[in-house]
Amino acid sequence: MDGPHSNTPLGTPPDVAQQQAALAARYGAAARPGMSFGAGPWNPTIASLLDHRSVRAYQARAVPPGTLEMLVAAAQSAATSSNLQTWSVVAVQDPRKRAVLAEIAGGQAHIEQAPLFLAWLADASRMARIGTATGTPLEGLPYLETFLVAAIDAALAAQNATVAAESLGLATVYIGALRNDPARVAELLALPPGAVAVFGLCVGYAADSGEVKPRLPQAAILHHDSYAVSDEAAQREGYDAVLGEFSRRHGMAADSWTQRIVSRIASVRALRGRERLTATLRGLGFPLR
Amino acid sequence: MDGPHSNTPLGTPPDVAQQQAALAARYGAAARPGMSFGAGPWNPTIASLLDHRSVRAYQARAVPPGTLEMLVAAAQSAATSSNLQTWSVVAVQDPRKRAVLAEIAGGQAHIEQAPLFLAWLADASRMARIGTATGTPLEGLPYLETFLVAAIDAALAAQNATVAAESLGLATVYIGALRNDPARVAELLALPPGAVAVFGLCVGYAADSGEVKPRLPQAAILHHDSYAVSDEAAQREGYDAVLGEFSRRHGMAADSWTQRIVSRIASVRALRGRERLTATLRGLGFPLR
Repeated sequence: MDGPHSNTPLGTPPDVAQQQAALAARYGAAARPGMSFGAGPWNPTIASLLDHRSVRAYQARAVPPGTLEMLVAAAQSAATSSNLQTWSVVAVQDPRKRAVLAEIAGGQAHIEQAPLFLAWLADASRMARIGTATGTPLEGLPYLETFLVAAIDAALAAQNATVAAESLGLATVYIGALRNDPARVAELLALPPGAVAVFGLCVGYAADSGEVKPRLPQAAILHHDSYAVSDEAAQREGYDAVLGEFSRRHGMAADSWTQRIVSRIASVRALRGRERLTATLRGLGFPLR
Repeated sequence: MDGPHSNTPLGTPPDVAQQQAALAARYGAAARPGMSFGAGPWNPTIASLLDHRSVRAYQARAVPPGTLEMLVAAAQSAATSSNLQTWSVVAVQDPRKRAVLAEIAGGQAHIEQAPLFLAWLADASRMARIGTATGTPLEGLPYLETFLVAAIDAALAAQNATVAAESLGLATVYIGALRNDPARVAELLALPPGAVAVFGLCVGYAADSGEVKPRLPQAAILHHDSYAVSDEAAQREGYDAVLGEFSRRHGMAADSWTQRIVSRIASVRALRGRERLTATLRGLGFPLR
């Protein structure tokens, strides 16, 4: 990327101010003085990445012609393990299918609202068809590794599409809740054995305004040479405070992040059907050996 | 993203020419006339995404100060399921650890060469520590869903770091081969139970020049409302030709893509130890129930 497409690196004071504001929003204003990094590299692409928020309310306004195709071209440009390209994507426009997907996801109206809805597939079925076409038994296909490669490659691809969409002024939200019932999604989208929707993605123009959600301090996530957790309790307390303030500003439930983690993971019931994922994937053609 | 960070949308003829050249490189020049999309949205971020190639030779030149921290800030800005943030990253600088990682990956010298090497972790251990700290049993933790969320979130994060790096003129390559021996990686990086390196990432200045690798035609990947494979044999033949031409231009083995898929997946031996992934993950604290 030393070519004509390169973004301009950091140079001028307005960039520094923009960068500091973006970092303060991402880590919480209170965390800013404690951050161990000052002015690093900066450009419009990084500004766009840091400005991400998940949007759950969309305008009816359609996306410009060619948008879907450019998002998929961006997705296909992501790295893919050994160039296997073990993912596919289904653009769902049929309103009846959208309604079923929204129901599977526990009533998420934005799945029906957004001008684009993409179901991202871990797709080993293309390899299976190549095995059939060439008369080759594919011993490697039934392994967990093959499913994992497909799911990771689908995620890399989808994130490129997300970055492309947001660079165009569009908003997005991932829909992990397609995993509440992957078998019903597979039937709805006529997926062959060996293909499963690992998540969905809404794309469109935001109908609300908002601010980015603060994340854990970087020191809690980034380790150097060895994993170390010495300050974790203090980091968690600080983050609970930052996120609590964010929630109050937005009229959201005042649960701390720590409480949310506990309530999400304490009971099998909170998995909303996803506790059956292993059995479901086996039924869809992923033995996960 | 209707804010001050927005990139400029498509407008001028030079953009159209740049877009057409990028699409021709990504899908193969021969495929260009058959593509169903002309001038779609375009901006420098999308140009950078389409220009991705994986680089396996790096200059000794260090990355600018603050680069690692900005890449991790970009990574943390990616969506994360229910804000669980079940991933972490280890920046490995220790040359002895780099040498072991290169060996695990089957002798990939660029792991030792690149100025930055990042090991991306699916990390449920933070949730486990919250369970311990709050005295809560976490019933949801041992499920495949929890591992999958962590692996997908690590991939979304890593791809944001990759996009940020490439926007700064840096090159990258993912290292899936850390999964050849995740237990040894975990021991090397002192990972706690419930954390596993799902892949690595080299970051640095490219020491070679190259062109982007063509991908399957978009029609093979993108489906509308239902999955359909009617033209797949013809698409595969066309792609084998495009990729064969690319390989000849670069003095690479002349195997077709179809042959590569078959040789990669035909035998368990080609999985290079990854056929034991299920057992290995169980040993590292992911029961995958």
